[in-house]
Amino acid sequence: MRTANGWAAQAPGAPLEPWRFQRRDLRPTDVALRVTHAGVCFTDLDHVRPGPGEERPELFPLVPGHEIVGEVVAVGSEVTRFRAGDPVCVGNIVDSCGVCEACRGGDQQFCAEFPTLTYGGRDRHDGSLTQGGFSDEYVADQAFVHRRPEGLDPAGTAPLMCAGITTWVPLRRWEVGPGQTVGVVGLGGLGHVAVKLAKALGAEVVGFTTSPDKAEDMLELGADDVVVSTDAEAMAGQRGRFDLILDTVPRTHDLSPYLTALRFDRTLCALGMTPEMSFAPQALLFGRKRLAGAGSGGLADTREMLDFCAAHGLTATVEVLPVSEVNTALDRLAAGDVKYRFVLDLTA
Amino acid sequence: MRTANGWAAQAPGAPLEPWRFQRRDLRPTDVALRVTHAGVCFTDLDHVRPGPGEERPELFPLVPGHEIVGEVVAVGSEVTRFRAGDPVCVGNIVDSCGVCEACRGGDQQFCAEFPTLTYGGRDRHDGSLTQGGFSDEYVADQAFVHRRPEGLDPAGTAPLMCAGITTWVPLRRWEVGPGQTVGVVGLGGLGHVAVKLAKALGAEVVGFTTSPDKAEDMLELGADDVVVSTDAEAMAGQRGRFDLILDTVPRTHDLSPYLTALRFDRTLCALGMTPEMSFAPQALLFGRKRLAGAGSGGLADTREMLDFCAAHGLTATVEVLPVSEVNTALDRLAAGDVKYRFVLDLTA
Repeated sequence: MRTANGWAAQAPGAPLEPWRFQRRDLRPTDVALRVTHAGVCFTDLDHVRPGPGEERPELFPLVPGHEIVGEVVAVGSEVTRFRAGDPVCVGNIVDSCGVCEACRGGDQQFCAEFPTLTYGGRDRHDGSLTQGGFSDEYVADQAFVHRRPEGLDPAGTAPLMCAGITTWVPLRRWEVGPGQTVGVVGLGGLGHVAVKLAKALGAEVVGFTTSPDKAEDMLELGADDVVVSTDAEAMAGQRGRFDLILDTVPRTHDLSPYLTALRFDRTLCALGMTPEMSFAPQALLFGRKRLAGAGSGGLADTREMLDFCAAHGLTATVEVLPVSEVNTALDRLAAGDVKYRFVLDLTA
Repeated sequence: MRTANGWAAQAPGAPLEPWRFQRRDLRPTDVALRVTHAGVCFTDLDHVRPGPGEERPELFPLVPGHEIVGEVVAVGSEVTRFRAGDPVCVGNIVDSCGVCEACRGGDQQFCAEFPTLTYGGRDRHDGSLTQGGFSDEYVADQAFVHRRPEGLDPAGTAPLMCAGITTWVPLRRWEVGPGQTVGVVGLGGLGHVAVKLAKALGAEVVGFTTSPDKAEDMLELGADDVVVSTDAEAMAGQRGRFDLILDTVPRTHDLSPYLTALRFDRTLCALGMTPEMSFAPQALLFGRKRLAGAGSGGLADTREMLDFCAAHGLTATVEVLPVSEVNTALDRLAAGDVKYRFVLDLTA
């Protein structure tokens, strides 16, 4: 076994503390990477600080982290794609069944047998619990390890592995490009990357935010226009404007104004895992709108996204903290005090 | 002006009574038809018996009816498509702007300027209120009058003009055919036609109903299988089975089990105008499902649907009542006591 040093919550709600644990010995197709950076996603917060009734003690001790950047330190006997020293990254899944409709179609994240999550998942071979990237080393099958563009800032690359791919997939699915107008609702980890990606794809990009304070930020990130969504008059003026709207807000809110803001026959794609989705049915039916779910991306999508970001010099806008300040990062994330993603430096 | 004899509600909530009124003189492209049959849709009920706060007194006196069958009795000077004696039918819209994205794409029912409804609409030329098909004569522009297949029972053809086209469009949009499994939720006017159309298109068809009593009816209509939706175990067994589900239920109900019953990346199409749509977001996000609105169809769609029904000898299953019993029809429709659509005989 390989010894790793991570930051774990020993129980639901407990702060993260240093924890030494074992990772598996390399299988023939495994890659071991030294983790240099790991993004801090809302999912991490949800896992270590679950709401009442949502505790899953069987997953603890738990090392979070699924936006992982590092470099290869060792490879299994049959690994051909990587060698020691290669810059790599890992996202939120590390295995899947490989044979279901979703896997065959390249959508491993929607594996019918459920993909193996990067942490808090069960390894498909030995049944052990996976532990995440808030640790000095990670081990994964080479198929789920991605070559990392060397020209991109490593810290800013980490969030691309979750926030980036989650917004990239719907932008590509609905063929966003020049001549199209895309709305992005919310300006957090996902929203800010969505603005950058949609702009780089050539679309007109309009941000929606509840706080006038963030309007300037959205323009700085590249948005062509910003709408303050609490301004009913401004919202009414958006009717029929958009080819696609990505809603990244992780709180329950009325989707009707966004459905209304779509053009005929277009799609509102919800990315935030909200407790409820609420809207007036006529906002969906009139104009034949669609409300679509999305989440993360498959292996080929991830490669394509990384290539695109490399070509455009595009990374997330991050605040880097040493891993020893992980609890501060979680506190501030819970308070919404981040522009726009915390990334932990595992080498600090 | 042309004198017509119809059945009108003089005010919201009033019973329908005989009413003599005027229709416009024929414009150059108008067709006048003698109405022989008119289907009774839930929309008619909603119009003449609105709920509290939904009264629209400005639309009264109101003659309902937008599933209209009849034959041409007179044509305007420039009408080339029809002549006296032609069997025809009219659906729920009779005009549209013709230049918006939806109209240009053949989706006149989603006209950005709002289509002119067959009744309770405003004529685009003279601003007069349109009056519906529960009357002995109707006048419409030839573009919105459809040639009626002579081989089909006229009474059973009437509901095709609303219930038929509304279910036909999503079945075609998602390319339903052999090898696909289609679910139909609800067995009313829309649901029973959806079962027949999906079956005629070659799909495996599964009906969902809350009442075990209706299971046998669904099989008689051609469904291959029926699931009683109040049976939680049976519902759980549907997970990942369907390529498309058409939900025709006009009451608020939990959509989550139907989203879960879809295969990866498939669509739940909601046709019933419910007060709310309720579902668990994860049922939409996991498996990348879509919830789509739909409603009615355009001119080309309607022609295609009528041709298909003619080729397959397919009509709605109806109970015909003389127009003098229209209030009985509305009472029984409100009570759910109909298999599966009332059609009024205007010649009786």
